[in-house]
Amino acid sequence: MMLHDSRGHHFPGHTRTSVTANADPSAELDVTGRPLALRPADLDRFFRPRTVAVIGASDTEGRPGARITAQLIAWAERVGARLFPVNPKHERIAGRPCHADISAVPEPVDLAVVLVGDPAEVLEQLAGAGVGFAVVFAAGFAEAGNAGAEAQARLAQLTSGGSLRLLGPNTNLNAFEEFRTDLDGPAIALITQSGHQGRPVFAAQEIGIRVSHWAPVGNEADLEIADFVRHFADQEEVGVIAAYVEGFKDGRTFALAADHAARQGVPVVVVKVGRTETGARMAQSHTGKLTGGDRTASAVFRQYGVTRVDGLDELIDTSQLFARTRTPIAQGVCVYSISGGTGAHMADLAAAEGLAVPQLERATQEKLHEWIPPYLTVSNPVDNGGHPAGDERGRKIIDTILADPAIGVLVCPITGAFPPMSDRLAQDLVDAAEATDKVVCVVWGSPVGDEDAYREILLKSNKVVVFRTFGNCVRALRAYLDYHRFRTQYSSPFEDVPRTASPAAAKAKRLLSSGKPLSEHSAKQLLRTYGIRVPREQLVTSAAAAVRAAGLIGYPVVMKACGPQLPHKSDLGLVKLSLRSASQVRDAYREITDAAKEAGAGRLEGVLVCQQVDRGVEMVVGISHDDLFGPTVSVGLGGIFVEVFDDIAIGVPPFGAYEVKRMLGELRGLKCLQGLRGQPPADLDALVDVVMRVQRMALELGDEIAELDINPLMVMPRGGGTVALDALAVAR
Amino acid sequence: MMLHDSRGHHFPGHTRTSVTANADPSAELDVTGRPLALRPADLDRFFRPRTVAVIGASDTEGRPGARITAQLIAWAERVGARLFPVNPKHERIAGRPCHADISAVPEPVDLAVVLVGDPAEVLEQLAGAGVGFAVVFAAGFAEAGNAGAEAQARLAQLTSGGSLRLLGPNTNLNAFEEFRTDLDGPAIALITQSGHQGRPVFAAQEIGIRVSHWAPVGNEADLEIADFVRHFADQEEVGVIAAYVEGFKDGRTFALAADHAARQGVPVVVVKVGRTETGARMAQSHTGKLTGGDRTASAVFRQYGVTRVDGLDELIDTSQLFARTRTPIAQGVCVYSISGGTGAHMADLAAAEGLAVPQLERATQEKLHEWIPPYLTVSNPVDNGGHPAGDERGRKIIDTILADPAIGVLVCPITGAFPPMSDRLAQDLVDAAEATDKVVCVVWGSPVGDEDAYREILLKSNKVVVFRTFGNCVRALRAYLDYHRFRTQYSSPFEDVPRTASPAAAKAKRLLSSGKPLSEHSAKQLLRTYGIRVPREQLVTSAAAAVRAAGLIGYPVVMKACGPQLPHKSDLGLVKLSLRSASQVRDAYREITDAAKEAGAGRLEGVLVCQQVDRGVEMVVGISHDDLFGPTVSVGLGGIFVEVFDDIAIGVPPFGAYEVKRMLGELRGLKCLQGLRGQPPADLDALVDVVMRVQRMALELGDEIAELDINPLMVMPRGGGTVALDALAVAR
Repeated sequence: MMLHDSRGHHFPGHTRTSVTANADPSAELDVTGRPLALRPADLDRFFRPRTVAVIGASDTEGRPGARITAQLIAWAERVGARLFPVNPKHERIAGRPCHADISAVPEPVDLAVVLVGDPAEVLEQLAGAGVGFAVVFAAGFAEAGNAGAEAQARLAQLTSGGSLRLLGPNTNLNAFEEFRTDLDGPAIALITQSGHQGRPVFAAQEIGIRVSHWAPVGNEADLEIADFVRHFADQEEVGVIAAYVEGFKDGRTFALAADHAARQGVPVVVVKVGRTETGARMAQSHTGKLTGGDRTASAVFRQYGVTRVDGLDELIDTSQLFARTRTPIAQGVCVYSISGGTGAHMADLAAAEGLAVPQLERATQEKLHEWIPPYLTVSNPVDNGGHPAGDERGRKIIDTILADPAIGVLVCPITGAFPPMSDRLAQDLVDAAEATDKVVCVVWGSPVGDEDAYREILLKSNKVVVFRTFGNCVRALRAYLDYHRFRTQYSSPFEDVPRTASPAAAKAKRLLSSGKPLSEHSAKQLLRTYGIRVPREQLVTSAAAAVRAAGLIGYPVVMKACGPQLPHKSDLGLVKLSLRSASQVRDAYREITDAAKEAGAGRLEGVLVCQQVDRGVEMVVGISHDDLFGPTVSVGLGGIFVEVFDDIAIGVPPFGAYEVKRMLGELRGLKCLQGLRGQPPADLDALVDVVMRVQRMALELGDEIAELDINPLMVMPRGGGTVALDALAVAR
Repeated sequence: MMLHDSRGHHFPGHTRTSVTANADPSAELDVTGRPLALRPADLDRFFRPRTVAVIGASDTEGRPGARITAQLIAWAERVGARLFPVNPKHERIAGRPCHADISAVPEPVDLAVVLVGDPAEVLEQLAGAGVGFAVVFAAGFAEAGNAGAEAQARLAQLTSGGSLRLLGPNTNLNAFEEFRTDLDGPAIALITQSGHQGRPVFAAQEIGIRVSHWAPVGNEADLEIADFVRHFADQEEVGVIAAYVEGFKDGRTFALAADHAARQGVPVVVVKVGRTETGARMAQSHTGKLTGGDRTASAVFRQYGVTRVDGLDELIDTSQLFARTRTPIAQGVCVYSISGGTGAHMADLAAAEGLAVPQLERATQEKLHEWIPPYLTVSNPVDNGGHPAGDERGRKIIDTILADPAIGVLVCPITGAFPPMSDRLAQDLVDAAEATDKVVCVVWGSPVGDEDAYREILLKSNKVVVFRTFGNCVRALRAYLDYHRFRTQYSSPFEDVPRTASPAAAKAKRLLSSGKPLSEHSAKQLLRTYGIRVPREQLVTSAAAAVRAAGLIGYPVVMKACGPQLPHKSDLGLVKLSLRSASQVRDAYREITDAAKEAGAGRLEGVLVCQQVDRGVEMVVGISHDDLFGPTVSVGLGGIFVEVFDDIAIGVPPFGAYEVKRMLGELRGLKCLQGLRGQPPADLDALVDVVMRVQRMALELGDEIAELDINPLMVMPRGGGTVALDALAVAR
């Protein structure tokens, strides 16, 4: 559907969807021609090669290639790979024999790092030599304009068929950094489209957060974010995938990878640039990628349980929480503090974020009062007044809270560091976290961050999750609890996606064959083809026929001018409502045809005589296209909900009926469907059914329909179904 | 007005407003009986006393009083005050002669710190001895239940009349901390209702942020937040007032103090707990204060330009920005980075926050390309590609950006620290900030925070404003630019507040004298009294009279049952629309009176025959009451805007017409007033006029009206005025 401000003002048309190259050639396609599986890529061989060649290696002091060669040698030693320098100008490099070209390397090569400025020729040789992976650092490709884009297309072609896979061009050494190996527990696997933007996540190792991989995807001529998401989701040591994204290479491949991560139960957290036009434009100039619609991307994230955050600090904090935790044991959050003010503030923000802050059980509270003075609150938040944190009562309090069955998460904000209390408190929290399967979070509120309790106690733990701000803590917890709810309900939409067109499609395609906007009557026939109910109606070309039609349909009727290009019909006097007699119908026929002439409305197909439907909630349902993700389906409430509040939920096919309910749950106007002011609740099941039918149209007619817009779709009270009162369809 | 989900469901009634004690006894009162000036308090004498007495002083090792006494002695030495221990059980304390009671102290005492558990008797003595200020640490007052509240009331009474002023009870030593004296520039003055929650702001001195004062207001038996806001706004060294608030003692006194700060041009930034019921409940149990309506507090903040933030980190960051900056020279923000990705991300978030990220002038861009390679973007964001930051080009680039006339703020996010570039970049930013009146912000994105460029270069500057997250930076900049726009447009509403009732008030009070809900007809008379237009209408008690009335009013007419308690009239069949003839009026009269009997609607006053008004935008305007702030006025769009979106703006009297426009600007439904889909824009001036008249009613009838609700107020196209189609009024 169209996010337009009024009928007839649509966004510019999109180009026809091109189907991704990164498909498994042996895999099935869906009815749109999009793949149902990613092309295989054995990235374990990339990250843990046995043999590495450096093409263009150097050890000439001061040359950029020398620094890189040295770093690669060190990395190869760390991962236990044999490294072969390749450079026709050198005999030996860094004490190793240097080879003239790849064919001279005495062993099969898993990974070749290409340091030469024009990599195309080298890639051909690598492909010929059976190399597994190439990494190309050279810049000046798609990010640098048309000529660069053509050069990149050539690289892509070189790696599209055979067994050679390519990372880059315009990537960097991030995959070969030295990772800390002394940190335990599930790790963050990082994927970035900017080395600088990934640096803070990598640096988080210095505060004790384990990072196991970094994939700097560069321009994605071949390997792309999706390949690394899929790979990381299969790695034992990976607890979460964190990504900094400026644009996706392809919508479907990302969806397939995100689906795989969702099935594997590995959370994905992303920063995605492009909330605004400014950001989208900049990201495009930086990476040379289409950014697609930002709301469409958010919809895909919702569908596959991907957590979207705005800042790199949130990327670290949220990923850390995911990496250190598993399925929550209970939904309740307990706030525990050495200050009543701190507890009140934290509980307020937690509740505002939609977290459950339940009262502790009576037995828990009684037990807490064994150690906490009676005048302090222990219901939740728990205020210990300070002193109990400094002695043996502290640990008992924490354990007692964690034993409460309603509590899955304990949050302890320590805003003011006071070593006699906070050092012991920090140690108790660390110890308690070791001994529980529940989540223990600490907010270290000092802006300084050099305190011992923070650096030496809290950051040394790989169980406690440490935040620096209340805000990041409550937002991360919300993402964590939401994700696990999502996961238990998730079923992959790719299992049921149609592979072949339904019988309706052929009929529908005939209606659309004109390549022009359809009249209302034709658009409604299109809907009927897919089983979507429309009002009883008849297209007539005389007043007498209109009266006969009205008699068959039943009074009152609505009459409307009908032609291929008639937006704003009501404003032009081309719609007449509540006609209750033959004479009113006759008058209306004359008035409408006169008004149409006056308005210069062009050739009318005729006048529609329609059943009048007054009850129900007015919705809009439609199809639109996204550059990246292809056909999309939208649903929202009609009238000012769309016009003033832009209150629309988007779904990217394929999706199941359950997902449609989640889309409806996103609408701020949902209350209207649930029954406002004692109205009966609307027939949600019928609405979901219409959205699913529209999805089927989007999938089967994606290349034929530029846009479909049912507005309004009247949704009757429960059991009453729906009626599409008006529709606009534009063929491509 | 009432924020209710439907007619007849109102929030519980409030108690009658009690007028604050903290008024200047010689100052005028407004028509509500609220003060127009705060009671004077020479807080300079509190913060810089010449003489200090410590009542209950001790130097017995291990006694809590000994630690406090020692800290007070050290503080007195720092501020150059003479300190007198007072304790009948000691001869000497810490080497000083100890006095038996306050009367024995040989000099007039500016400040007495009371360490005894039951301070009431001591306060009497202090008052008798002409002491200026007392500080009471003892807890167990209003925060501890009814008995405590009574004890606190006694303390309040002891200090309400004479010259003794009281800080506390339940306060602490925060005012007497040791502040860093080596930091320059305007400082943060801090006010808190929790010592622990103020600690991070105080600790910000360790990262180079100057803090000059800390007022821990405790239970506010006498001195309250407002007194300190007023005082700090007058201090030369104070650049911003930062406050952590759980509840206000009084709405009017806070408004007066915030007005004073706005006039003085000193920004106020607050964390206010109570966004949710959970938080409000906890804050109340912590401080024993009413929290009032959270939205009402937000409205007061809007009216006086107070910045509200959610986290203590934002409190520090936003306050720091305000303290280090003055009026912006231009509104534009330029993002400058060593990475295209970082620039795109930051610019995206800045634009999403509503900041202007304008293209740099052509001449600026050309100059930047003298140092930045041509393939990099310099339009804004400026991407230097990295290398220029490491040499002499770096400073030239920064200065060139700062010279662009559209740019008032330069933001440089450094997400990945890389010393060869980022050390020099940091120093260049510090130097450039010294040399400009524009704002220079840096986001240090490393989560570690122990890097030299951060600690040794950036944090040593008192001109650069350093953030740790993109989010806090863009939100603080938004607050900064908004505040200065606010300030240039601000005029104090207290200048024009009515001191005496208008002639309308007496008439209105007669209408309200019943103490019951008014009928629609009476409520409309009330509106007419205040010059608010209502439809032509007549109350009739026979069908014949109804027909006569309709003839006079003009067809079509609306008819409604009229009685004191008739909510949901439409649902009960008590309203008939579009009556176009005498016979329809006659039928309607019968149907309405029958339906009223059937519905058991009680005694009708009669049936209203009203002019039918179909055009216009439906608004709601009303009066409600807030526990803290007294009468409030709300305005919003009718129908689903209120019911589904709760889209209501609140104003707390007194406010001017300009403020009403700002209220309307807060409404998400504002577009409807500006003219949707080619509709003419609505008569905003007339709407503002009605809101101002309703404000007058709220001020003059605040004690008589429990609630007033005009719903709908039809606002006609520009020039057409307004008509109040229905109204509900409940007398107190």
